[in-house]
Amino acid sequence: MRELDERFLRRALQLAERARGHTSPNPLVGAVVVRDGRVVGEGYHPKAGEPHAEVFALRQAGPLARGATAYVTLEPCDHFGRTPPCSLALLEAGVARVVVAARDVNPVAQGGLERLRRAGVAVEEGLLAEEAEAQNEAFFTAQRRGRPFVLLKAALTLDGKVAVPSGDARWVSSEPSRRVAQAYRQWLPAVGVGVGTILQDDPLLTVRDPDFRPFPQMLEPPPLRDPWKVVLDTEARTPPTARLFQEGPRGEPARVWVLAGKGAPKERLSALERRGARVSELPREGGRVSLEAALALLWEEGIDGLLLEGGPRLAGAFWERGLVDKVAFFLAPKLLGEGRGVLEGVSVERMAEARRLRLVRREWLGEDLWLEGYPEG
Amino acid sequence: MRELDERFLRRALQLAERARGHTSPNPLVGAVVVRDGRVVGEGYHPKAGEPHAEVFALRQAGPLARGATAYVTLEPCDHFGRTPPCSLALLEAGVARVVVAARDVNPVAQGGLERLRRAGVAVEEGLLAEEAEAQNEAFFTAQRRGRPFVLLKAALTLDGKVAVPSGDARWVSSEPSRRVAQAYRQWLPAVGVGVGTILQDDPLLTVRDPDFRPFPQMLEPPPLRDPWKVVLDTEARTPPTARLFQEGPRGEPARVWVLAGKGAPKERLSALERRGARVSELPREGGRVSLEAALALLWEEGIDGLLLEGGPRLAGAFWERGLVDKVAFFLAPKLLGEGRGVLEGVSVERMAEARRLRLVRREWLGEDLWLEGYPEG
Repeated sequence: MRELDERFLRRALQLAERARGHTSPNPLVGAVVVRDGRVVGEGYHPKAGEPHAEVFALRQAGPLARGATAYVTLEPCDHFGRTPPCSLALLEAGVARVVVAARDVNPVAQGGLERLRRAGVAVEEGLLAEEAEAQNEAFFTAQRRGRPFVLLKAALTLDGKVAVPSGDARWVSSEPSRRVAQAYRQWLPAVGVGVGTILQDDPLLTVRDPDFRPFPQMLEPPPLRDPWKVVLDTEARTPPTARLFQEGPRGEPARVWVLAGKGAPKERLSALERRGARVSELPREGGRVSLEAALALLWEEGIDGLLLEGGPRLAGAFWERGLVDKVAFFLAPKLLGEGRGVLEGVSVERMAEARRLRLVRREWLGEDLWLEGYPEG
Repeated sequence: MRELDERFLRRALQLAERARGHTSPNPLVGAVVVRDGRVVGEGYHPKAGEPHAEVFALRQAGPLARGATAYVTLEPCDHFGRTPPCSLALLEAGVARVVVAARDVNPVAQGGLERLRRAGVAVEEGLLAEEAEAQNEAFFTAQRRGRPFVLLKAALTLDGKVAVPSGDARWVSSEPSRRVAQAYRQWLPAVGVGVGTILQDDPLLTVRDPDFRPFPQMLEPPPLRDPWKVVLDTEARTPPTARLFQEGPRGEPARVWVLAGKGAPKERLSALERRGARVSELPREGGRVSLEAALALLWEEGIDGLLLEGGPRLAGAFWERGLVDKVAFFLAPKLLGEGRGVLEGVSVERMAEARRLRLVRREWLGEDLWLEGYPEG
């Protein structure tokens, strides 16, 4: 029984994965309806504003849903939002048993399991909960911490350098690695850089290769718009001529958001606004835009994930404050010598205080090593 | 035929490997004698001063060597050294064919194949030459370059740091990695450190765990003496109380060699000599002991390999001069932030000038990554 439950729940996780990059600020959700050991309905949540996974699966199952078991990766919602609550849909369809991987932590949507239990449906939860939480790590982190999930991405030489001392960083990693690294922009709703990176590298920060999906479960092409380009720019030094204002490769308009410090020169802020940027003035902390304020603002706007792409000083500032939730590194088999490290301004007294990563991906891309990990402690 | 030749030659390589760490300044050599497709004799060179591989294999073959094929990993020597030439031994035994992997590059010993050919023996060479050269990389590098093979070993955090800014480095990598890292001292006849490492870490630089051999082919326990402990110490600041003067874990006396710069304080040099160190005064270059002079001196004394263990500045100086032949890195999944890099004082203008490594080992030791590679270009 447990083995079968696990199999159907895995299938639901797989279905959910198809929409990665599309659902924010909603989570990825997949659902499978099973009757007498046979799958009679499947669905996933394709994007915010469209029906939830359970609805698609129930529609496909039709009358066969009566007395069936529904497998859902996340607790069915219990509120009337843009769609009616899934708990009611499951009850109306006559489902007899519901198996859920992860509890919803969104205080607005949660409560679906309670409603189902009260109505006499057999409810089980917690199976594959870890996988389900990992699948929606941005969603869960944002819900729990009240700020976007922050993923620090960097390409480093084997001796830990992201650039030569004067700043040149082209290129640390190989072309295949850079392709994979760019594909992270298909995942999270915002990319963050410091103004130093704009001035040094003048990056586009677009999804250049929407058909390339190194994460094989993703079946949908990425959304037809690039992530928000968030620039942490205390003095509003971003030039209105910067390349990040250019439209994306599929003609999508650039969405640039400059987070400046209070008191930044007005004329520069206006120039950026005229160029089409959204501009916010935030409190300063130690002379720079407060990172906590920046994250709080993004989260208020429904941005649940930030891909931190540029600037060792910015990365160091996030790291120092415990604001990095995950890292993705591409290590190239090169030695540089002197250069800029991945975390500037971070300093401990003893080697024993170095922060460990729990690595969850260790994959070779040709000669480069692709790592993902979670900071411990 | 070629397939069989390869199989027997691989066996000979395997036999040679057993004596790793014992043969310096001689190479590792293995030999197999095959008669009618059957192995009738096997041997390897156990250590300098003892008979060569061919002699052991021929002894074991006895009269069966007549008309047989001899597989040898390295061209048989042709000179009367501490033992008579192997070319003659093969001729006297009546071997009909000799298959050799690598040519000897030692001008004194080479010539064995010519003698055999002239005497009518069928000679083939070059099969598995690459493997055979790699097996004796210290020997071949030393012969070709006229200086010891230099292997740079380091433990780094994922962000490329070997120590915190003030120097503390205990410990970067995990206990299993440190065990493997120490076992490199079983291979090469000398360990090199800068005096900064002595003053900072006061290391023992001994083979602590002689029974631990992470390289499974090694059958012989390591030699009953520790490697030469070579300290690059321009001003002779090594304290006579340093731990590296202590005897090894098996009671072997420490062999410390201090390479000071010309004009180093006499009284300090004498104190080190009184403590049992060998002391040499070498020309300075840019205020420091000339690395080229240091390596030349070691090679004059028959030291064909140097394991560079300590000091980012020393490592950087070797690297800058193109004196690093191979690296062995242990990467720990940690991030430190600011700290000392693996190569200090090395600097290039553009990222494109970073030097690539051709990785030949990529192995996980628990959470740590064990890499070996050769600098390219």
